Amino acid sequence: MINRTRLEGWIEELAQFGQDPLGGLTRTTFTAPELQAREWLIRKLKEIDLDVTVDPAANIWGRKEGLKNGLPSIAFGSHIDTVPNGGKYDGALGVLTALEVLTTLHEQGVKINHPLELVSFSAEEPNPFGLSTFGSRALTGKLTRKHIESVTDAAGNVLTERLEIAGGSFEQFEQTVRPPSDFVHYLEVHIEQGKRLLTKNIPIGIVRGITGIYREKITVKGQPNHAGTTMMGADRQDALTAAARLVLKIEQAATDYPIEELVATVGEFHVRPNAANIVPGEVTFTMEIRGESDEQLSEVHNQIEETIAHIENDRNVVISREVVLNQAGVPMNQEVMNTMKTIATNRGHETLTLGSMAGHDAAHLAELTSSGMLFVPSLEGKSHCPEEESRMDDIEIVANVLYETILKLDEKSV
Amino acid sequence: MINRTRLEGWIEELAQFGQDPLGGLTRTTFTAPELQAREWLIRKLKEIDLDVTVDPAANIWGRKEGLKNGLPSIAFGSHIDTVPNGGKYDGALGVLTALEVLTTLHEQGVKINHPLELVSFSAEEPNPFGLSTFGSRALTGKLTRKHIESVTDAAGNVLTERLEIAGGSFEQFEQTVRPPSDFVHYLEVHIEQGKRLLTKNIPIGIVRGITGIYREKITVKGQPNHAGTTMMGADRQDALTAAARLVLKIEQAATDYPIEELVATVGEFHVRPNAANIVPGEVTFTMEIRGESDEQLSEVHNQIEETIAHIENDRNVVISREVVLNQAGVPMNQEVMNTMKTIATNRGHETLTLGSMAGHDAAHLAELTSSGMLFVPSLEGKSHCPEEESRMDDIEIVANVLYETILKLDEKSV
Repeated sequence: MINRTRLEGWIEELAQFGQDPLGGLTRTTFTAPELQAREWLIRKLKEIDLDVTVDPAANIWGRKEGLKNGLPSIAFGSHIDTVPNGGKYDGALGVLTALEVLTTLHEQGVKINHPLELVSFSAEEPNPFGLSTFGSRALTGKLTRKHIESVTDAAGNVLTERLEIAGGSFEQFEQTVRPPSDFVHYLEVHIEQGKRLLTKNIPIGIVRGITGIYREKITVKGQPNHAGTTMMGADRQDALTAAARLVLKIEQAATDYPIEELVATVGEFHVRPNAANIVPGEVTFTMEIRGESDEQLSEVHNQIEETIAHIENDRNVVISREVVLNQAGVPMNQEVMNTMKTIATNRGHETLTLGSMAGHDAAHLAELTSSGMLFVPSLEGKSHCPEEESRMDDIEIVANVLYETILKLDEKSV
Repeated sequence: MINRTRLEGWIEELAQFGQDPLGGLTRTTFTAPELQAREWLIRKLKEIDLDVTVDPAANIWGRKEGLKNGLPSIAFGSHIDTVPNGGKYDGALGVLTALEVLTTLHEQGVKINHPLELVSFSAEEPNPFGLSTFGSRALTGKLTRKHIESVTDAAGNVLTERLEIAGGSFEQFEQTVRPPSDFVHYLEVHIEQGKRLLTKNIPIGIVRGITGIYREKITVKGQPNHAGTTMMGADRQDALTAAARLVLKIEQAATDYPIEELVATVGEFHVRPNAANIVPGEVTFTMEIRGESDEQLSEVHNQIEETIAHIENDRNVVISREVVLNQAGVPMNQEVMNTMKTIATNRGHETLTLGSMAGHDAAHLAELTSSGMLFVPSLEGKSHCPEEESRMDDIEIVANVLYETILKLDEKSV
């Protein structure tokens, strides 16, 4: 079994890098504190005799060979970058439980058949360079030199320069790609970032799939007009009140939908001309819908479309829409899920099978190999903030399930 | 009777100053085109032997003495500045009908008892210096040196420098003030800027009062959260959907109010953090209510307060409010209104008594002397835009009512 005290110590050690004045962690990708965290991790991997490499996307790999030659690897990990003013669990839990599993195996001299590879992916979080899941997209060939060659952040830092400082290579960037035949499984432990496990008091989440994300930019065009001399009713073509109706409908459609794991959000919202004494003439906003399948998204969509037609008609406005993101949901591997569930049950733990409502590196890895994710409960459901937290009791439970899952999959896949 | 052809010519002449590339007039206060328009007006006033003065607020006065010494004046006019990309009727109609009345009196040698004073007020419109109804507020002592001494526009133009170029004086600014005993009446013709006259096909509006304007800054505080992992329902404290409900209630309360001349508008609206993938944590917006009396405003207010309590309760948000403007409604003089109505009726015209839903110089003059306003129908209700227009038929009718009203008030007030 894993060593809880050691794991807890590592969580605190890693959290020394990037402490910010607001009480959180700001360890955004390729910044000085993130580079320090990388060095710390590499040191830890070397201490347990792993073969450490940094690939051209600056992903960090720690490899332990298996007994049998020529077998594909079981990979597992997550990321160590954070959002600005984030917490110490998001990403870190996946990398540190992986480190703990490998340290336990090393310490106890456990022999395994397959090579095991710990991976810490670069730049998973939304970051100032505007490229999240950077490392896992590079690994799967979706991010190439042309996507990164002229990227800078707002302060003028050049992405490719920072990448090289982190040990990556722009020249050889495409060589980050590895073939499916390299892997037999990918596993990732992550904080839930929601309240479902906490509310049900269940210590382990087994992820069924990673949500699809669909985003539209919606524009409501009315007529800007004098806020005094334009009477209420038909004289007004108020883009804001029309948009307000639509915003409420979007919320309602998702709330009424019979599956909990479908959410809709209007997060970005702009009013023009935006003056106290002018009836708004135009509103643009984003509508985001997350759900597991295209069918779910379509059902919600159809309801919203009907309402749009009503609003245009009732309020004499024109509503136009543009799809800006349409990322399909990614199912996790059923065999991996079953293995996780059996192990957890045998250890006497209840599990909850649930969808991941946030994106993860595992969504990309699932294209390469049969993948699975384990969620640890979030206290208060808080995420991407200093208050983000998981209990050590839950972390220990999930780390042990990860440990046993790796051993079980290693046996099965020979 | 006034000379329609001459008046029409003047409307076109004045519209030569400030033509902009967008087909409208940009004759904002104290800019070069506005200074040219001032010179043009002063020339016209001198041509009919008026005594022309420019006061320290750069208001232009053209005075014709009456037969009897020591009587107070009947003043009338409006303003010749425009909003950026405005039209040729707003303000100009009041000054040019006044000029036409005085020209007709001059031409026909009509003798009057009271002095008559045409006035063209400085900077009535919202302008880059942030000080509207500049001239009429200076006249009534509400705008003083301390309000204007360090004012600049965004381009760095210094208000007091521009004021002096226009013929005003910072040193003597407070001497703009004139005592109530100087005046017996103030009259102003203005384009309606709405559709009420047009819809009812009535050529003359007699203004009952100038609307009160009440503005609050409303802040809705929820909790910013991950747009994926925060489930719908109780987990969300979405400030935007809460604000949307309130925006619709504000609209509904004003629409349902039994008096047409009460309007409510949310014109300015800001969402934080304003990102597609974050549930909005805070919304701030302005609520503006316009109505004739405090009682009307209070009734609407009470309805909105009830809804605020419901929203706070249902949606677990906190709504706070701050009054940022509370400008009381200003009634026009009943005797002046009656005189206008009798004259219009005698000339065979239907009139509509209505509230002015926009602010005007007359709102300030009403503190000084018994005042009245006449509205000319707006085509399509358009205002503050190049398409702003009134028909010459209506302008002629209203100018003649102004002419006769002045003669009638001159007789009555001796």
